[in-house]
Amino acid sequence: MTKLDQIRCYLDQQKAELAVFSDPVSIDYLTGFSCDPHERQMFLFVYHELAPVLFVPALEVARASQILDFTVFGYQDSENPWAKIKKGLPAIDAKTIYAEFDHLNVSKFQGLQSVFTGRFDNLTPYIQSMRLIKSSDEIQKMIVAGEFADKAVNIGFDNISLQHTEADIIAQIEFGMKKQGISKMSFDTMVLTGNNAANPHGIPGTNLIENDSLLLFDLGVETLGYTSDMTRTVAVGKPDSFKTDIYHICLEAQLTALEFIKPGVTAAQVDAVARRVIEKAGYGDYFNHRLGHGIGMDVHEFPSIMAGNDLVLEEGMCFSVEPGIYIPGKVGVRIEDCGHVIKDGFQVFTHTPKELLYFEG
Amino acid sequence: MTKLDQIRCYLDQQKAELAVFSDPVSIDYLTGFSCDPHERQMFLFVYHELAPVLFVPALEVARASQILDFTVFGYQDSENPWAKIKKGLPAIDAKTIYAEFDHLNVSKFQGLQSVFTGRFDNLTPYIQSMRLIKSSDEIQKMIVAGEFADKAVNIGFDNISLQHTEADIIAQIEFGMKKQGISKMSFDTMVLTGNNAANPHGIPGTNLIENDSLLLFDLGVETLGYTSDMTRTVAVGKPDSFKTDIYHICLEAQLTALEFIKPGVTAAQVDAVARRVIEKAGYGDYFNHRLGHGIGMDVHEFPSIMAGNDLVLEEGMCFSVEPGIYIPGKVGVRIEDCGHVIKDGFQVFTHTPKELLYFEG
Repeated sequence: MTKLDQIRCYLDQQKAELAVFSDPVSIDYLTGFSCDPHERQMFLFVYHELAPVLFVPALEVARASQILDFTVFGYQDSENPWAKIKKGLPAIDAKTIYAEFDHLNVSKFQGLQSVFTGRFDNLTPYIQSMRLIKSSDEIQKMIVAGEFADKAVNIGFDNISLQHTEADIIAQIEFGMKKQGISKMSFDTMVLTGNNAANPHGIPGTNLIENDSLLLFDLGVETLGYTSDMTRTVAVGKPDSFKTDIYHICLEAQLTALEFIKPGVTAAQVDAVARRVIEKAGYGDYFNHRLGHGIGMDVHEFPSIMAGNDLVLEEGMCFSVEPGIYIPGKVGVRIEDCGHVIKDGFQVFTHTPKELLYFEG
Repeated sequence: MTKLDQIRCYLDQQKAELAVFSDPVSIDYLTGFSCDPHERQMFLFVYHELAPVLFVPALEVARASQILDFTVFGYQDSENPWAKIKKGLPAIDAKTIYAEFDHLNVSKFQGLQSVFTGRFDNLTPYIQSMRLIKSSDEIQKMIVAGEFADKAVNIGFDNISLQHTEADIIAQIEFGMKKQGISKMSFDTMVLTGNNAANPHGIPGTNLIENDSLLLFDLGVETLGYTSDMTRTVAVGKPDSFKTDIYHICLEAQLTALEFIKPGVTAAQVDAVARRVIEKAGYGDYFNHRLGHGIGMDVHEFPSIMAGNDLVLEEGMCFSVEPGIYIPGKVGVRIEDCGHVIKDGFQVFTHTPKELLYFEG
């Protein structure tokens, strides 16, 4: 059964006639057509009874038509997209229409409401549930994305120097990745030295790498339509024992969680086992974010690994495990791997060592 | 009058009690607080009568509080943000609430509707109209962003070689920018050789640079919160006269439009003067996109320079002028500068020469 067939089955169960996709990532996931329409309109219409239809900006029609085996039509910037959609779609009277409420903005929603008179319901939970369980083909792509992340962080390690700034090291990492054919990092690469790492959303800049301090790398790549995300914190020179103790608490939290994950446990339980390690050590207040986030085509997707999320984990779910301890003005540590739930555990996509690595400044 | 005062004036005119901002760029524009909350919730509440309030993810509260002189409160990932907002906001009975319909997704909108019982109206047109006219301070930042784009494209020129792929040159450009402290390109850098440039949204890859062909660069940087965007097409080796003729038609279209722009003319007229040049030469069908887009904090914002947009241009508006001619399988040319409308014309932010430049492969 294709992914589009699955959507049709869902419409059947819901007694709905039409699903409208607006998120370019969903459209790529379902059809293999990848496109960023910017502020222009793009919708995939999946019918219960009829063939799907893709509506795109005019300049994407030719490329989409090559890839897809169903009708594609478009609009020029100077045309009214809603009138064009109304005229171009099959004239069926859809009573219930599913749309991606977590993606669709209110203006587009009002545009669709001008085209369809039926009742709208939220498609986001279903498409999320589809994307939640990765196929073996998807896992293969995540493994490749993870291998590149390992390479990227090692380029970072090779460029550690007290003469370099955070920005210098980022430039080297991203240059190295581009040379290997990676056109896009999955988010802005972070290299944070000393106290800058003590801010969980610190911004890298022209700070020179500090000696006798910890240095944090958070990065990922996008390849084959899938993303990676990893964090390593390493020692430069000889950080004091307070800093290295914090590192080891964070590492214990991460390893404990990785060991715990398997089908049947809940997302909240995974968060709790990691958090307990840090709380027991007395630093619970300094671990002020969830343990992890889902990952796949988007670098942040479902499931969220956090308190309150009673989702039962299943084979094929992919997410990050990234405890952090941030003590303002003193030290910041985060250790992160993404992986997938397997039959009896969890397998990570990134394999750079996690015993505290020491580098000469 | 501060920008927040302007919002309060607008609320006064509209007899509305509250404006809710959800777009991180709007929030940055209005307050100077820059934050990407990812899939978490962030809202700026601007009241007609009371002080503003910012709602952010818990881990952003400290940083936001340092920057802002009004109340900031947050929520943990495990908390219900809507309950937290309802409890944390001043208990006033807002009858009319403005929200950013072009940004707010339906799920967040439903969340806000669970907090406020009043009627919602669309704030997007007003915030767009504010951002449409750039202050001299904003123009200064756009000039700096433009200077970096000129530097970036020149790094590209320095790396033209038949031994290089499109990806190699992109790597060199972005590496050079990072070394100069530019942490972010404003979009994925495009270097497109030969027929790949004949696709207006072609994707760069491992194609070696073709000889006796045209080579297209489209790039921009983000700096000081503002963006740049430029395109240059150059000759590698000795392209035939068909290709160079197409180049000169495109250039004439661009120069004609740049010359034409001044306060009082409409966006549609600017598009038309450029388009007429290309149509007269017989290639109108191959210029299949609008002439330009607004630019500022976002690389694509208002105004749109296209047929049907009767917006009258005013001093301080910033946008791109980027005619293109794409003849599949044969040649692709685009030439683009962004600039700002001045008292008696248009001043561009990028100054890399536009006579056809020839490079040895």
